Amino acid sequence: MEQLEEFLAKIRERASAYIGYPASMDFDYTELYPLLRYNLNNVGDPFVESHFAMHTKSFEREVVQFFAELFHAPQKDWWGYVTAGGSESNLYGLYLAREMFPHGMVYYSEATHYSVQKNLHLLGMQSIVIRTTKSGEMDCDDFRETIQSHRHQPVIIMANIGTTMTEAKDDVVLIKDMLKKYAIKHYYIHCDAALAGPYLALLDKGHFDFRYGADSIAVSGHKFIGAPNPCGVVLVKKSNRDRISHAVSYIGSMDTTITGSRNAVTPVFIWYALKKLGREGLLRKAMESMELAAYAVDQLNRIGIRAWKNEWALTVVFPQASEEIRYKWQLASDGDWSHLICMPGVTRAQIDLFVADMKQEANAGRVGSLDRVYLS
Amino acid sequence: MEQLEEFLAKIRERASAYIGYPASMDFDYTELYPLLRYNLNNVGDPFVESHFAMHTKSFEREVVQFFAELFHAPQKDWWGYVTAGGSESNLYGLYLAREMFPHGMVYYSEATHYSVQKNLHLLGMQSIVIRTTKSGEMDCDDFRETIQSHRHQPVIIMANIGTTMTEAKDDVVLIKDMLKKYAIKHYYIHCDAALAGPYLALLDKGHFDFRYGADSIAVSGHKFIGAPNPCGVVLVKKSNRDRISHAVSYIGSMDTTITGSRNAVTPVFIWYALKKLGREGLLRKAMESMELAAYAVDQLNRIGIRAWKNEWALTVVFPQASEEIRYKWQLASDGDWSHLICMPGVTRAQIDLFVADMKQEANAGRVGSLDRVYLS
Repeated sequence: MEQLEEFLAKIRERASAYIGYPASMDFDYTELYPLLRYNLNNVGDPFVESHFAMHTKSFEREVVQFFAELFHAPQKDWWGYVTAGGSESNLYGLYLAREMFPHGMVYYSEATHYSVQKNLHLLGMQSIVIRTTKSGEMDCDDFRETIQSHRHQPVIIMANIGTTMTEAKDDVVLIKDMLKKYAIKHYYIHCDAALAGPYLALLDKGHFDFRYGADSIAVSGHKFIGAPNPCGVVLVKKSNRDRISHAVSYIGSMDTTITGSRNAVTPVFIWYALKKLGREGLLRKAMESMELAAYAVDQLNRIGIRAWKNEWALTVVFPQASEEIRYKWQLASDGDWSHLICMPGVTRAQIDLFVADMKQEANAGRVGSLDRVYLS
Repeated sequence: MEQLEEFLAKIRERASAYIGYPASMDFDYTELYPLLRYNLNNVGDPFVESHFAMHTKSFEREVVQFFAELFHAPQKDWWGYVTAGGSESNLYGLYLAREMFPHGMVYYSEATHYSVQKNLHLLGMQSIVIRTTKSGEMDCDDFRETIQSHRHQPVIIMANIGTTMTEAKDDVVLIKDMLKKYAIKHYYIHCDAALAGPYLALLDKGHFDFRYGADSIAVSGHKFIGAPNPCGVVLVKKSNRDRISHAVSYIGSMDTTITGSRNAVTPVFIWYALKKLGREGLLRKAMESMELAAYAVDQLNRIGIRAWKNEWALTVVFPQASEEIRYKWQLASDGDWSHLICMPGVTRAQIDLFVADMKQEANAGRVGSLDRVYLS
């Protein structure tokens, strides 16, 4: 089909300059294509089987268990499932928080992914936006002042473990200390670790997991690990989850997931990547990506562009590039800033080509915001 | 990988006796597998492009347009997107209804898919369950009596165009007449046409589309058309949709979908099927499936099992089969009833084998509910 051929040619070309979004293409799931001959469906709870046989729940459970262990979920008190992506994972965490504290106030920083606002509106939850510091993490002074005047309400924290724009991490330990200081007994902490969750946990950095206070964690499958389509995992405490489960006779399964019918191919993609790479392979990828991100900052700085990155981040932030460069390299922008993200699969050669493009532009005086420097 | 080989062998075997769930396996998307090498994402609104290039929105728009035309959506006043399945499509319709009528009362029949209750709880919407007739459609007497005592509230109808268990169709025309009779000006009708939508529309039966009063329609992609994973389409009136859209700077796109990141491979699967088959091919499949369903009813009746089906349905209902048969043929059950569904791909040979199993069981006196006959 001509339309298809043309599309594949276009995608092949555009994939060669894909450094702006957090979606690794460093995968090969060819061995799994035979699955696509069937109409599979992981309907309902991954831990409950039924007469329906066309599912991959055994693989899904292994994926959920991998992340439960990686994030130090409390033994025998965890539960989770593979979602359609970060939005659904966060929606699930917030839904659980609402069920526990229907009159709770949600606090999230202004650098939070836009889908969270949409989720909160969907769920009808009250919320307050907290200021961020320049590098993008929640301003804890602002947070402290704000909860001081809302001590009568349960607190629901939506913490970013890697914001969309600068990959900043909110300080879960500090947040928890403050809740303790103000004697707030009713609280729930959801961590959106969509992007940075896997590598921070592998490197034991960031201090955001269940040991440090998370009640639930959202993580993406298609970002650092990579998949042909968006997917994610949500991990919660089983004891909390039990509050929102309802027995459903039709499917012979507990009705605990947000979506009923669920993609059953994706969990096998993620399972396959985890099996092939193991923790060691994933850690190696993380280290390589970190090095490449540091290299990108260095190369951009060398040509006079004040690029910077947060600690343990793969996201490199720099003054907004021109429309041409943002189009070619598919760069997301926010205000004065653009970013690139050194996902697994991004190569040094790509960074060099990008830096050459930026240099040409800087020489032509077209980088307009070089003076709007953050970390000078 | 051994685990994978074993799984594929199991799935191959179980697929041969897969007649209990509405998920066609009559497809071959091999030509599309090259797409799976990329990390694609139809993030945000399908009708809005951004710098992000790794998407298949042009295909998605064609799919949405196909269904807009099939369901006679008002010219230039329709919008929609490819969802992760029926739950998300229904959630979107109900979300839109809530935004239009925040104090509306939702009415749905007791035969409604369990995910709707979950959606309503998520959205915090008030609802009343309406009785069904024996064959599974909304009891219009009960509906009339109920709205009579709630005339002060806007009415939100969640109509089933093919219930899960008996594939019964709620009468949208009659419902609309009643709303008129009671002078209810503020109402919204969402049609869950997940299963039966495509073939009813092709056959011009059911009278549920935009011409007859639907404000939004949910339809599944993986059911009648078939796909390796659940997917769906939601179609709404664009003028209604505009009420819930918010501009989002990060992605340079309008934030109008429920999930942010969305599967971009699935829309191409559905596009491919629609292109290959066309309306004619789909209609042919529908007719063949109808004939097979009638054949299944006939064959079961011949051996003394009082099977029946609703008009223009592919779902054949019969007294609950034994645990062995329900396991082998993966039959869903509800109360006294089991069903099989003659999706495209189900063969006469499979029906014959199933009927032989049922006959053996009936001869052994193991079909316990033969006397609980509905249409005798």
